Amino acid sequence: MNAEIIAVGSELLLGQIQNSNATYLSEDLSSIGVNVYHHVVVGDNPHRLADVVRSGLERSDLLVFTGGLGPTKDDLTKETIAKVINKDLVYDEATEKRIQSFFAKRRQVMTDNNRKQAMVLEGAKILPNDHGLACGLVVELDGKTIVLLPGPPNEMIPMVKNYAIPYLKKQLSTAEQIQSKVLRFFDIGESQLVEKLDDLIENQTSPTIAPLASEGEITLRLTVKGQDQKENDVLLENLKSKILERLGNYYYGEDDQTLSLILQQELHDTKQTLAVAESLTGGLFSTTLTDLAGASTVFAGAVICYSNAVKESELSVSQEIFERHGAVSSVCAKTLAANIKQKLNSDIGISFTGVAGPDSHDGHEPGHVFIGIATKNRVVSYELQLAGSRDNIRQRSVKYGLYYLIQCLRKEKVDE
Amino acid sequence: MNAEIIAVGSELLLGQIQNSNATYLSEDLSSIGVNVYHHVVVGDNPHRLADVVRSGLERSDLLVFTGGLGPTKDDLTKETIAKVINKDLVYDEATEKRIQSFFAKRRQVMTDNNRKQAMVLEGAKILPNDHGLACGLVVELDGKTIVLLPGPPNEMIPMVKNYAIPYLKKQLSTAEQIQSKVLRFFDIGESQLVEKLDDLIENQTSPTIAPLASEGEITLRLTVKGQDQKENDVLLENLKSKILERLGNYYYGEDDQTLSLILQQELHDTKQTLAVAESLTGGLFSTTLTDLAGASTVFAGAVICYSNAVKESELSVSQEIFERHGAVSSVCAKTLAANIKQKLNSDIGISFTGVAGPDSHDGHEPGHVFIGIATKNRVVSYELQLAGSRDNIRQRSVKYGLYYLIQCLRKEKVDE
Repeated sequence: MNAEIIAVGSELLLGQIQNSNATYLSEDLSSIGVNVYHHVVVGDNPHRLADVVRSGLERSDLLVFTGGLGPTKDDLTKETIAKVINKDLVYDEATEKRIQSFFAKRRQVMTDNNRKQAMVLEGAKILPNDHGLACGLVVELDGKTIVLLPGPPNEMIPMVKNYAIPYLKKQLSTAEQIQSKVLRFFDIGESQLVEKLDDLIENQTSPTIAPLASEGEITLRLTVKGQDQKENDVLLENLKSKILERLGNYYYGEDDQTLSLILQQELHDTKQTLAVAESLTGGLFSTTLTDLAGASTVFAGAVICYSNAVKESELSVSQEIFERHGAVSSVCAKTLAANIKQKLNSDIGISFTGVAGPDSHDGHEPGHVFIGIATKNRVVSYELQLAGSRDNIRQRSVKYGLYYLIQCLRKEKVDE
Repeated sequence: MNAEIIAVGSELLLGQIQNSNATYLSEDLSSIGVNVYHHVVVGDNPHRLADVVRSGLERSDLLVFTGGLGPTKDDLTKETIAKVINKDLVYDEATEKRIQSFFAKRRQVMTDNNRKQAMVLEGAKILPNDHGLACGLVVELDGKTIVLLPGPPNEMIPMVKNYAIPYLKKQLSTAEQIQSKVLRFFDIGESQLVEKLDDLIENQTSPTIAPLASEGEITLRLTVKGQDQKENDVLLENLKSKILERLGNYYYGEDDQTLSLILQQELHDTKQTLAVAESLTGGLFSTTLTDLAGASTVFAGAVICYSNAVKESELSVSQEIFERHGAVSSVCAKTLAANIKQKLNSDIGISFTGVAGPDSHDGHEPGHVFIGIATKNRVVSYELQLAGSRDNIRQRSVKYGLYYLIQCLRKEKVDE
């Protein structure tokens, strides 16, 4: 079943809000085996909306509309679709009763324009709205399915979960199961990764392989369709091990396991705490760790030593280090890591020093970064030359820090 | 000029990522008077993409494509458009040189498939990519304009700001000037703000008024169309003063003046430095300040005192305070602010302590937050009860901190 998702609303075309409904619906529809081939956004304009409905009916089996079901004059999704498919809008008593009780509950008066919301497409199945006024509608027409949903996510999402998806599942002729697995890689370029998998991607059928790159991270989504769930799992596992034979060094986790989540888990499992000294990252590394609930059990604290004065007063970096090596150096990074560990009495210390830019500093280009890590057994440092904006450089420095720490912790587990 | 924004990428249709590019582009295009009438998302499929290109050329003057310019086989925006409009892809030496230096900078190897990115549509104007490999392209064709942009927002946004929008501004045939001004408000609800402006919004013609709420901040975009720039400015200024008569207390800045930018400016103007003690915000406040280049002149540094142990060892919060008042208290917030100021020898200290959630802590609900501020003359604290997720609570705490600091600094200027 091929679907398209059509959002109706001028506020989307003005860039005032994001079309998060399409993202949500895409994931839900894919998960039951519907192929979403198009998203469309169109404004509150009857002619352009009508054109979109027509072209949708030509190319797709399933049309899912969001928005334009409200009481105001510029809510015209129902009215426009009715015209295009030659159906009448008929008054639905049950719906009007529901609307009345909705207002009664809130001790509000029902205004005339709310009656508009009691009009439904003739022959449509009604999807109840448990969180608002506009009911959803489903129309079956010459083998095509048209679904109308309200725009506000807090009304749309439960309606989809509880009524639309169960309805569509029944419609789906196929008993096909869809399963997918996301593999996460770091410290490798997309083109380099794709080249290593060239033949696999070239000959992909089921499972399929979809790469996605963001800020130095790359994910591969493996998706399989098949009648038998167990069989699907085997296919996914086989492909995964094939891929890891080639890219194991860059692989760090699966599905929703972000770098920060894995680090938190590793620290938790090994009962270790982490202290942080941040110069160029200015708090971003600590923010990333403390984004996660439960951080307090593994995160001891941090000093943001943006200036040399604070590096010296709080973390005992000597004048001699500044003069001989500079603040942007392996020696300074190691000193910061070792001293923050001792100062906050933690098991591990990590430090970031370098140049975020836009200007160079102390004769170092933007993107020249040193990361220091002090563990129970050793103090090491890593040198990076990152490109991109100030923000890119800070983001990537943090991800490299997370990645190196995870490697250290896993290595030490092996060593012991 | 009527435009549509076409995003290419199967990951969007699978719901893996949101089409935030369309939102960004819509706002920028609207701001220069382009009418965006459609958003379309299509997958990495040459036939469906070709159909989308054709229907776009039929109904729109301007087609803006995002994504599908990468090095991999399923990046086929350039190739597909070339076929539809009967143009060749030609090799561009300058672009290849840029790609080579990009890899050189990162000390990475350039792979063969990257050469694909040096191919451009014949006769196209090239838009430089200052943050990645794929260059942007502009093609003029029988009165239609086709713009190709890379998918990653950190590459797309600067390319649009610096190259695409200036180019399109020149193209716009209309003699009509479009000017807009953004007014920024804080600490007031959207419905409350809209109610105060009810009549103005109801009778809006030119300038128009578009409210937009995000994380406790509300912006009003005033947009005016007219032949005469001076006249437009007067209209905007008149409306602005009308609005500020009613909402002046909540107004803090204009256009791109974010809270953090204004705070940096105020600190800079008064030659003061700021030290930060962060508990529940875990580094987010410092990150926000150091996002801005030039932070080093006003930001002394910070201690992230997530645990009581660090509050005690680093910031001398006494056991007596923990026992009598608790870590989530006005007294603790004031102590942290005063002591971080003294410790890092800065002019001002600010502190954040509270509960980010999801669970309550020490008998405090998530969202119960105290902010302490220590200036030359006084130490004060603010108590907040914020709603929303852990992330919302952290974000809003930071914005309130910025907002209160700005008010303090401005007040002290007046007092002196």
